[in-house]
Amino acid sequence: MTAYIGIDKGGTRHTLALADGAGTVMDRRQYAAARAAGAQAEIAQLRAALTELFAVAAARGLEVAGIGVSFGGPVDPASGEVLMSHHVAGWEHLPLARVLAEGFGVPAWLENDANVGALGEWRFGAGRGCQDLFYINVGTGIGGGVIANGRLVHGVMNLAGEIGHMTVQPGGPLCTCGRHGCLESLASGSAIERQYRERSGTARSGREILALAAAGDPVARETVSATADWLALGIGAAVSLFSPELVVVGGGLGEAGPVLFEPLRRRLPDYVIPQRREVRVVPAALGYDAGVRGAIALAMDHTAAP
Amino acid sequence: MTAYIGIDKGGTRHTLALADGAGTVMDRRQYAAARAAGAQAEIAQLRAALTELFAVAAARGLEVAGIGVSFGGPVDPASGEVLMSHHVAGWEHLPLARVLAEGFGVPAWLENDANVGALGEWRFGAGRGCQDLFYINVGTGIGGGVIANGRLVHGVMNLAGEIGHMTVQPGGPLCTCGRHGCLESLASGSAIERQYRERSGTARSGREILALAAAGDPVARETVSATADWLALGIGAAVSLFSPELVVVGGGLGEAGPVLFEPLRRRLPDYVIPQRREVRVVPAALGYDAGVRGAIALAMDHTAAP
Repeated sequence: MTAYIGIDKGGTRHTLALADGAGTVMDRRQYAAARAAGAQAEIAQLRAALTELFAVAAARGLEVAGIGVSFGGPVDPASGEVLMSHHVAGWEHLPLARVLAEGFGVPAWLENDANVGALGEWRFGAGRGCQDLFYINVGTGIGGGVIANGRLVHGVMNLAGEIGHMTVQPGGPLCTCGRHGCLESLASGSAIERQYRERSGTARSGREILALAAAGDPVARETVSATADWLALGIGAAVSLFSPELVVVGGGLGEAGPVLFEPLRRRLPDYVIPQRREVRVVPAALGYDAGVRGAIALAMDHTAAP
Repeated sequence: MTAYIGIDKGGTRHTLALADGAGTVMDRRQYAAARAAGAQAEIAQLRAALTELFAVAAARGLEVAGIGVSFGGPVDPASGEVLMSHHVAGWEHLPLARVLAEGFGVPAWLENDANVGALGEWRFGAGRGCQDLFYINVGTGIGGGVIANGRLVHGVMNLAGEIGHMTVQPGGPLCTCGRHGCLESLASGSAIERQYRERSGTARSGREILALAAAGDPVARETVSATADWLALGIGAAVSLFSPELVVVGGGLGEAGPVLFEPLRRRLPDYVIPQRREVRVVPAALGYDAGVRGAIALAMDHTAAP
């Protein structure tokens, strides 16, 4: 029987899972990444966990057909190389897919976490059965992934889905990319923290601000509502350009509940073509496991018929 | 030998062409549409022209494998139905693909003109060899088409590519769709005419304004430059979301030359992620024949391997 392994190589934690041929998780490992020890130490950790999962698969009579890897940073899916890491040194141009699979006798594929999030939600989460889906991940920054015609869209340099760097307010706040008025500069977790601090004079985490807003705090509500408006504008642009069946919101803000989704859904019709004003915008369904389950989906997509 | 027929069913003219297996046009017909006489009269015209082209094909020993049809209005490609016409009554829910092909013994496929424009430029024009392309048609209105992973993206209700109705200035000018600040309300041919009239007090056609701008008229230059800025913002959004290899600008403004393309290319880096600041934006290559050649591409895509 066929099996797959998914790896979520996050900044602080590694999650690995063994799944059966239908993608159902049968075994799961999670541990803290050896960040301080550098890339090679992290790879040794990953290979040790892989060895364990291959042993589990063998004991159950399962044959691992491939390994999918989610990486939190820019990668080249064609070569399986990490391009850089924002967190740890030593990752630049490291052929992670090949290095991980070496000696296990199976192929491995690498994708960035936003694209893996889209794949996971599409195959196992909120977007099952869609042909066209837009996934937006709103956390500290904003990323995204596009499924069109039932396939992930990579685009040049694997930069498709980078809605966080779409300009929504020319001349707006400075963004991490050096330009002004990107969606990320106005509607990310960091932007919420900045705006709340400016409005209230108090520093709070994004999670605290969302909780305050849900509890009725007026400054927090105003901040979250302004964020929802920018997200509606950005999502509206994606709907105009792709006309997806569904928009899935992942990351920390995907878990915000009605305090975010109510104003977001209320404002969206102002920003989409009238025929699509009913477009569904839903929270991601997989939560923390989006990465590892998306990595399983990545391996399944590559080993299934072309 | 295999052949294809392409039909460009425009508002005022019909263009039909017979192409060989490589898509090279071998025979071409063009005439004024019998608009005043209604949809059925136009269909009779089209079927008469098809009969002629089938006779030409037979005389040359060519076997027509399919017919592609471009229609200037909303269609349902899956059923081959016209949804409505903005120009002539009697088209609503007319199964145009089936009606045209009836009796000729070959399949026919229907697409809207913006998607056909994208297909034509991708297969025969400025976008040959690309896997990912964004096509924007700037005429009286603004439409567009998306090629991702080497396939046309339709999206729900065939509305993918509707960049004209992306909001770029919340609360901006009233658009034909009833909302405010769509790209079409700020950067279409109609918008140029309105802005020039407001600035100068004189009514001019879009073509005249482009010519005046090219000749150095300051008000016309200012108008075209403002248009280029909005187009850069809109195209920047498409680049952020798809990361296409190439952006092709068709329609009347695609023929504007440096007076439009220079400011457009100068402003674009402000609106795209830094890694893609060199993205190529080029005029469409097929000119008036984009429709009929795109319709040939449509037939070829459907009859080639899946």
